[in-house]
Amino acid sequence: MEVLSVCLNPALDRKFIIDGFTLDKLNIVSKEKNRMTPGGKGVNVSVVLSHYSIPSIVTGFIGGYVGQILLSELRKYGSLISTSFVRISDETRENIAIADTLSHTLTEINSEGPTVNELDLNNFLKRYEVLVQKVRAVVISGSVPKGVPLSFYGELTKIAKKYRKVVFWEARDEIITESIKVAFPDVLKYDMRRSEKILGRILNTEQEYIQAAKDFVKQGARLVILSYKTVYDFVATEDGVWKFSPKVEIDHSYLLGSGDNFVAGMIFANSKGMCCLDMARYGYAAAVAKTSYIGKEPPSLSLIEEYLGKISTERVE
Amino acid sequence: MEVLSVCLNPALDRKFIIDGFTLDKLNIVSKEKNRMTPGGKGVNVSVVLSHYSIPSIVTGFIGGYVGQILLSELRKYGSLISTSFVRISDETRENIAIADTLSHTLTEINSEGPTVNELDLNNFLKRYEVLVQKVRAVVISGSVPKGVPLSFYGELTKIAKKYRKVVFWEARDEIITESIKVAFPDVLKYDMRRSEKILGRILNTEQEYIQAAKDFVKQGARLVILSYKTVYDFVATEDGVWKFSPKVEIDHSYLLGSGDNFVAGMIFANSKGMCCLDMARYGYAAAVAKTSYIGKEPPSLSLIEEYLGKISTERVE
Repeated sequence: MEVLSVCLNPALDRKFIIDGFTLDKLNIVSKEKNRMTPGGKGVNVSVVLSHYSIPSIVTGFIGGYVGQILLSELRKYGSLISTSFVRISDETRENIAIADTLSHTLTEINSEGPTVNELDLNNFLKRYEVLVQKVRAVVISGSVPKGVPLSFYGELTKIAKKYRKVVFWEARDEIITESIKVAFPDVLKYDMRRSEKILGRILNTEQEYIQAAKDFVKQGARLVILSYKTVYDFVATEDGVWKFSPKVEIDHSYLLGSGDNFVAGMIFANSKGMCCLDMARYGYAAAVAKTSYIGKEPPSLSLIEEYLGKISTERVE
Repeated sequence: MEVLSVCLNPALDRKFIIDGFTLDKLNIVSKEKNRMTPGGKGVNVSVVLSHYSIPSIVTGFIGGYVGQILLSELRKYGSLISTSFVRISDETRENIAIADTLSHTLTEINSEGPTVNELDLNNFLKRYEVLVQKVRAVVISGSVPKGVPLSFYGELTKIAKKYRKVVFWEARDEIITESIKVAFPDVLKYDMRRSEKILGRILNTEQEYIQAAKDFVKQGARLVILSYKTVYDFVATEDGVWKFSPKVEIDHSYLLGSGDNFVAGMIFANSKGMCCLDMARYGYAAAVAKTSYIGKEPPSLSLIEEYLGKISTERVE
């Protein structure tokens, strides 16, 4: 097995298209406009990897009816994705999005999500230590459910490092801030959707981003990716800092999910022997390629290769 | 076994309480404000009967993830309810109701519901004929999914009559109009929610209701119940016609589900040897008792007895 995807807080993503969706009324959603897909960032990364023929195991916490549906739907992706979740008693997150293509609204109803208890956590740690030994790389991505400490990414990375695995993170600031007190991943990617903070503060100038990226490398990360103004990234390795930009116009509305494509692109590149800056370039090309069309499916490898020529990677330090 | 409940189009009823529910925004529903209950009129009748210790088998069509959840939830009611559904490939109906207690709105999102094919229908008829022989009474209640002919209540009743079973219907006009061309039930109760039509026309005067009820009796029903202006009922047997009224004030907002209590009340009364007018009085008392409190649970038998004194049954012909 190549990759262990840790998705601590998976979700079942449901989409209803209801034109003329109205409050205080009865709205009908037709069969073909009622979809469900497995979600959660770690799950998404595994799904993208399966498109590139990279086998992975997904682990995390799963529970209830929603968890059961998620597992059944995930199994439909075929044998490249295996699952090894710890069962919990609470319901897995259910995220309902009601799209109205007439009024151009998106109304979301997300369930609160489960709470994980001490016993679940211990069961997970035992299972994780077995799984991590079977893989080459570990990706930990997305939110943590209630009951899981914010330093948990660090704990899991410490265990992975014991077995000399390559570790990728994509997470929000609260998790990264606490987790790097325990251990640093090889690849640190900030998820800055709905939050622009890095280590608790909002950075303003490009120079501040460059400095933050360098600091993370100095402290132990081998590759750091900080997104900047949505479409740019500051990328740091021990050799320097680069600013990545698209050479093409990007439709912001297609950015959804491109972070997962970035991570999966890097893991794919890494599996082909690329490292550091080349790996980040590949991930960035995958993310930009993803914005070039409507649709959930990941960009093909040939499209990513094409997009390697449509991005600029300018050294800034 | 006492009763066979035919629920051709069951539903999973989900309720989210979201105060300040807003379009085009992310809304969070907390764990304790996110409920699901098995629904569909036939299912509801069985649930009420189980409160009165009357065992029943529920049958109909069920499918998909939603169907599986419905079955699991129904099993929680204990051994008085058994299930014997025909599995179909489409998803069972999922009815989501979003209640906002601040703005006093109820936004409903109902899935379209399944389509039943010829093979499913034949499988159902075979199963039904086996089940019907095991019971004393058959109740057929609620809508029919796509693919099921509107005359299906009639077909099922013809089979039940072959084995001399007592048959109860509660259905809407379209179904009754087509089904009585095939066979009449013993007890015919009109479901007039969202439609006031009887045999395709809107009746206006009390005299028209009385005439319609008498006609159904003449054609073959032993007991006919036509609801009138929501809280009244015209009740006909071969002995005459009565107008039922509450002697107490009724809170219209608590009327939800009282039709199922009416039917279950009649079945309970029938199991105790009551017939015709007495049976209808018991059902009406149960329905009125149900409107006297908030909450989904059916009225206790002692509350129903009490309400027998709070209704008036005036002979009108």
